[in-house]
Amino acid sequence: MERMRNEIRKVKALTNKPFGVPFMLSYDFSLIPLMVDLFIEEGVPVVLDNGWLDPEIYAKLKNAGIKIICRLPNPNLADALKAQALGADILVLTGFDEGGTLPMKEVGSFNVLAEFVGKVDLPIMLAGGIADKKAVQASLALGAEGVWVGTAFIATTECRSHQKVKEWIVNSTANDLLLFRTEPYYYRSLPTQLAKKCFEMSENGATRSEIAKVMNAGTGMRLGMLEGDFDNGYVSVGNGISQIDRIKTVKELIDELMG
Amino acid sequence: MERMRNEIRKVKALTNKPFGVPFMLSYDFSLIPLMVDLFIEEGVPVVLDNGWLDPEIYAKLKNAGIKIICRLPNPNLADALKAQALGADILVLTGFDEGGTLPMKEVGSFNVLAEFVGKVDLPIMLAGGIADKKAVQASLALGAEGVWVGTAFIATTECRSHQKVKEWIVNSTANDLLLFRTEPYYYRSLPTQLAKKCFEMSENGATRSEIAKVMNAGTGMRLGMLEGDFDNGYVSVGNGISQIDRIKTVKELIDELMG
Repeated sequence: MERMRNEIRKVKALTNKPFGVPFMLSYDFSLIPLMVDLFIEEGVPVVLDNGWLDPEIYAKLKNAGIKIICRLPNPNLADALKAQALGADILVLTGFDEGGTLPMKEVGSFNVLAEFVGKVDLPIMLAGGIADKKAVQASLALGAEGVWVGTAFIATTECRSHQKVKEWIVNSTANDLLLFRTEPYYYRSLPTQLAKKCFEMSENGATRSEIAKVMNAGTGMRLGMLEGDFDNGYVSVGNGISQIDRIKTVKELIDELMG
Repeated sequence: MERMRNEIRKVKALTNKPFGVPFMLSYDFSLIPLMVDLFIEEGVPVVLDNGWLDPEIYAKLKNAGIKIICRLPNPNLADALKAQALGADILVLTGFDEGGTLPMKEVGSFNVLAEFVGKVDLPIMLAGGIADKKAVQASLALGAEGVWVGTAFIATTECRSHQKVKEWIVNSTANDLLLFRTEPYYYRSLPTQLAKKCFEMSENGATRSEIAKVMNAGTGMRLGMLEGDFDNGYVSVGNGISQIDRIKTVKELIDELMG
């Protein structure tokens, strides 16, 4: 908790502009109400709800004047309308082209918005595979009012990811990625040894829970992405890697995406 | 063969504009050279190669002045460059958002082009999930010079698909579709009884060949799509169905897509 408070204070010292923080930060869900209280104390301007959709948390954040971005893990109209009723300010919808833990349904970023545009009264951001200006323009054409970018920031100078990870992203395309079944549904990674093992299990009919045990969840991500251990970790990136051709600074990336 | 010749003559009687015909029309590949000769005899202006990439066929068609559209079943740069070297005129790249038999890699229509744009000297058409004007505009933003549309034509007045199929498409979204493993890789269908059975087998670890046997390949498609038998057939449509809200005439559809 204190580490999070310090990180928030560092950001506040660096900018007067709005910034956002997610309240689900670990598998220990008992931290969530504590995080929410901390965000209110620290005056965080924007909070991300990863589809938790808890009425009490929404009420607390709204009362504190905090904007809420709701990103549904499984984009569906019922949950989108629930987020709207609870007072979410922005809805993020994620296509099957993202990296890491994937939605249940295999609806790519190209098609995920159509079911929602015109049926939800919230600004919609598209997520999944957006890593260059063309993808931003395509997102807007499809009805998004904004974009949600993950993988492209992993390949920036400032990111804490391992240098080997950044270089691997630059030198790979979406065709190199491995997708396998696991809990809750699917996972996508660059082809580390661990990812190859999970992929083989998935191809050979192992159950989702058997594969999830081998995946070594949070630890596998830390080992692969922060420590560059491609034997025991995975590198969770999306199909947008085809569009990443060099390591940029965050400023260069944002200038390109918004330019 | 005579039926194909008659169909080509019917089209020629109806239009002076260019039209295309695929040379792979059944699982009997021995028909392919006969089809190619027939197309040359009948002066078909455009032929579709579904990634067969046969140098003799390309040479024959080129000598006859016939334009070749090459659609790769598994979009990859090596095959794209091979098609280019053989003399293809247009390259079609298909994202994982299409219906029916899917590519090996799970790269959606949003991201499939990036690996090819600027590396292949052919005009590229995007396929998979394109069913309305927004999707066409997004395709162009992503670098396509044209689009390849399948599912949207299945829901037109003129299409031979069963009326129940057209209505089911109109009343469904991409979230309703089922994806399952089979040969060669994956298949996507509306949730018929047969598709549900294959999906359950896929979830429970059956092998691709076990599922392929149950699928009942060509017959299952005929039963589902032409006869509206949703017990014994499947309905192979893409993620673009979210964008289809009524049954249109072909003219209405094309006016919308091109408008």
